[in-house]
Amino acid sequence: MLKVVVIGSGNVGQHLIKALKAVPDVLLLQAFSRHPEKLDNILVPEQITDNITNLVDADLYIIAVKDDAVMQLSSQLNFTDKLVVHTSGSLGLEAIDNKNRGGVFYPLQTFSVNREINFNTVPFCLEAENETDYTILKELASKLSKNVYNVNSAQRQALHVAAVFVNNFTNHMYTIGSKICDDNSLPFDILKPLIQETAFKIQDLPPTQAQTGPAIRNDILTIQKHVNFLTNEKIREIYILLSQSIQANAEKL
Amino acid sequence: MLKVVVIGSGNVGQHLIKALKAVPDVLLLQAFSRHPEKLDNILVPEQITDNITNLVDADLYIIAVKDDAVMQLSSQLNFTDKLVVHTSGSLGLEAIDNKNRGGVFYPLQTFSVNREINFNTVPFCLEAENETDYTILKELASKLSKNVYNVNSAQRQALHVAAVFVNNFTNHMYTIGSKICDDNSLPFDILKPLIQETAFKIQDLPPTQAQTGPAIRNDILTIQKHVNFLTNEKIREIYILLSQSIQANAEKL
Repeated sequence: MLKVVVIGSGNVGQHLIKALKAVPDVLLLQAFSRHPEKLDNILVPEQITDNITNLVDADLYIIAVKDDAVMQLSSQLNFTDKLVVHTSGSLGLEAIDNKNRGGVFYPLQTFSVNREINFNTVPFCLEAENETDYTILKELASKLSKNVYNVNSAQRQALHVAAVFVNNFTNHMYTIGSKICDDNSLPFDILKPLIQETAFKIQDLPPTQAQTGPAIRNDILTIQKHVNFLTNEKIREIYILLSQSIQANAEKL
Repeated sequence: MLKVVVIGSGNVGQHLIKALKAVPDVLLLQAFSRHPEKLDNILVPEQITDNITNLVDADLYIIAVKDDAVMQLSSQLNFTDKLVVHTSGSLGLEAIDNKNRGGVFYPLQTFSVNREINFNTVPFCLEAENETDYTILKELASKLSKNVYNVNSAQRQALHVAAVFVNNFTNHMYTIGSKICDDNSLPFDILKPLIQETAFKIQDLPPTQAQTGPAIRNDILTIQKHVNFLTNEKIREIYILLSQSIQANAEKL
């Protein structure tokens, strides 16, 4: 029975706590939160603490807080030689104070408090200072998900940048699409089936092969019409830069 | 019984022909193609012609060809005063030669020859020169899909630009993510659940509210790390411009 403590009660923390509670052979003992009320509906009061020096003895401590708070919290732990991991895509192993054994337990997914996540498909990217700890993390992650990856710090950094493109920037494309709809008295709903199919398509087609549109066709007339249509300077700049990038990319293939 | 002829055998043409064949109260009489072999598995030889002046009498002619061929084909039709529509997002009504009654029958979706499309959710954007013709198009579209919209030429132009952002440019974000994975010995599969969830999330959350990541958090440290990581100049430029745009957009809210 693996005894686990979760430190943090934000999006990732809450989803992890819920998921860990449901996993067999895992005992979620306690959670730390500066805002214990956030966990009221998830844990009983005895399982929640707002005092970081008051953590119970466990096999694994998962720090699921904002990047810039990981280092400080890990240095405040009043025990040593325990397995302590963070859940961040952009921090290295060294973010865990070296009085404990560091590791990374990074779920590569976008979390919202009010949306259920099916952990079964969430890719877990794992790293640990030694083999034994890695095995502990791998066994735990495999109970949560069928997608478990050994990812070193350099790869995780790359992955985090890639995630910014496919998640943050893609969502910004949706925002721009939504704004264009608003400005032209069209419901954003009209774009949603296209957005879904765009994401589905690359499940079995490489994105370079799925590319369509005026840029890849080098349809200068349509591109010019679109550029003229876009009166917002920043959005026009994005249109031009991304069209150029699609064309540059096509030349290399 | 509505008698229909489809002109064109590309992605949209083929999908439309298959869908129309399955619709009750619609009789797909004939299809025109410069490459009749493309339709071999869809229609019997008697239904296919490669001679544009050889079209049979019908209630509706749907021109589903590349944008720059619509005008020429519509002017080559050797009949008058028939309802002739195109399926383009970027062309106006005037692309149909005025010897016939023009209209637009624009399915707002991304089509690939080898991928089945569930027409039931595809938004159809309709326009016609007169009420009677609009009603014909609306009845037909409603048999194919539950999402039918009255969209004028100015709105359709806007929609086409919005579609470039949420489809073409989003797919390019996937391409960049895939390239970063390749360059770092990571499988692109690792990003796919994130890509799916990003698209699912905005089904019930406005994209401005779904925005996450270093740009919206104004996390300068992470942004700087990412910019340093990106050695490809064009991709770095995209990272910076999109991060700025996310921040500018947040200020306005």
